[in-house]
Amino acid sequence: MHTLLIQSNPKTMDMYRELVTAAGLPSLQIVDSPSPKVDIFLGEPTRLVPLLPQLPSLIWAHSIWAGIEPLLDDSLRRDYILTNARGIFGGLMSEFVFGYMLLHERKILQRLEAQKIGRWDSSITGTLRGKTIGLLGVGSIGGDLAATARHFNMKVRGYTVSSESCPHVDRYFHPPHLADFASGLDYLVSVLPDTGQTARLVDTSLLACLPPGAIFINVGRGNVLDEAALIQALRNEKLAGAVLDVFEQEPLPADNPLWHEKNVFITSHSAAPSFPNYITALFLENYRLLIDGQPLKYRVNFERGY
Amino acid sequence: MHTLLIQSNPKTMDMYRELVTAAGLPSLQIVDSPSPKVDIFLGEPTRLVPLLPQLPSLIWAHSIWAGIEPLLDDSLRRDYILTNARGIFGGLMSEFVFGYMLLHERKILQRLEAQKIGRWDSSITGTLRGKTIGLLGVGSIGGDLAATARHFNMKVRGYTVSSESCPHVDRYFHPPHLADFASGLDYLVSVLPDTGQTARLVDTSLLACLPPGAIFINVGRGNVLDEAALIQALRNEKLAGAVLDVFEQEPLPADNPLWHEKNVFITSHSAAPSFPNYITALFLENYRLLIDGQPLKYRVNFERGY
Repeated sequence: MHTLLIQSNPKTMDMYRELVTAAGLPSLQIVDSPSPKVDIFLGEPTRLVPLLPQLPSLIWAHSIWAGIEPLLDDSLRRDYILTNARGIFGGLMSEFVFGYMLLHERKILQRLEAQKIGRWDSSITGTLRGKTIGLLGVGSIGGDLAATARHFNMKVRGYTVSSESCPHVDRYFHPPHLADFASGLDYLVSVLPDTGQTARLVDTSLLACLPPGAIFINVGRGNVLDEAALIQALRNEKLAGAVLDVFEQEPLPADNPLWHEKNVFITSHSAAPSFPNYITALFLENYRLLIDGQPLKYRVNFERGY
Repeated sequence: MHTLLIQSNPKTMDMYRELVTAAGLPSLQIVDSPSPKVDIFLGEPTRLVPLLPQLPSLIWAHSIWAGIEPLLDDSLRRDYILTNARGIFGGLMSEFVFGYMLLHERKILQRLEAQKIGRWDSSITGTLRGKTIGLLGVGSIGGDLAATARHFNMKVRGYTVSSESCPHVDRYFHPPHLADFASGLDYLVSVLPDTGQTARLVDTSLLACLPPGAIFINVGRGNVLDEAALIQALRNEKLAGAVLDVFEQEPLPADNPLWHEKNVFITSHSAAPSFPNYITALFLENYRLLIDGQPLKYRVNFERGY
């Protein structure tokens, strides 16, 4: 018999419980609070950290996030198997980024306006084919975006510290060649995390390297962007638009001018949520492996950190 | 020395001439009117048909359309190489279809409305992942749509007379199993041409097989749809929306109720235009093969008809 503790935010907690219950897993009891009996955990890493001392029997924890950094702290035990959510976020990010790029290319809003007045707007469409996308950061998510860009016959540039491991990137750039990377891009997409090195990377000088028809999309973290520089570039028509999912301060304050800036889309950190049903599917798959005595999938190497 | 005659509609004629001229092809003269000297044709099949008797030296014609049916008429000569536009339309159709599907899933219009009033709308996004798309017709274009659907982790059904040749289709259906095909689809997409068999295939009974949350997208030909049945289904909330690029009568008449029907997108036959630059690239590639004495690509087999 296994005992599962589920801990996530109040919005999703019941969903996870229902999804796991509905799967009718054999030999499994679900509990609400930590106890010495609990040997399996499903939930948010930040919620597991303080509970670790109360879970002496823990053999396996499945993180519902991709990010498991809180559990990598040197002071914490590592005598359990840690698995995490994978293969989900890149696809969601692709849907988001390409949804907005296609909104632009296909003139969807323009055609909607024409429809309102009953006008047959057969003006020629734009296309992603042959356009160039530049990815600021090419990890797991950037790699998925690169694959989707390649699927749509785009040219793909990647900007990384040094890695060149993604087969879908046509051309890599590394520091200090940021200006070369940005020159001639149709779409600049940041998937960069919030680190000291990435702060304000997208500033006046980088935006000045882009052609006036370019669009900036931020699905990484808000600190990469100098918001004032972006607004300036848009108003001076040195940039055609921006799609911003993330901000230094979230929710974006009501008095932030970005809300009402022309050609800016505010998407309120909706790009890649943790969908309980997909996250749970990974957990269910692994539970069945566990009771079959097979090695678990999506396992995190504590030393490597991913 | 080769002599090229270019004939297309007035909107694109000059573009083709300029694109070919700019390529600086060796040993090529471009002319404006038919003559016994003309040995190469670039243009619309319907414009070539009446000119064929005036082009005794014709060795090669490149169609700027995918459709070359007019040139397959039994009464016409076949003593020249016919090549056509390929590999372009499927990609454009994919951009169109997935642009509108992502518009829906990602709640792009809803988030735009929220932005107008400065509201942080972090409501959960939909996703294509795990959704089911049903393709009415799986030829070259349907195959491209299937590949894109697979890329976005969708389940793909195909409805064809009998062929099952696309590797990206998970499950094929054939007549008379149209209702089984439609049952449970999230997206029904028609790429069917206008033939006697396809008229009014999408009617009340087919629409009734779809779940109420489904969306119908027509990028084939208008005659496949019973418009009155579609409007009825939408008003009875048996269908969530429709994206209509093609109509029995184009431009869609001003008094057609579809213009102002809720959740209907009228896209004015803009899904997959013949882009002169891409079409011309195929021609240029083939011209270079011709003067090198190599076999041409994108060749049509007159017997097979494609």
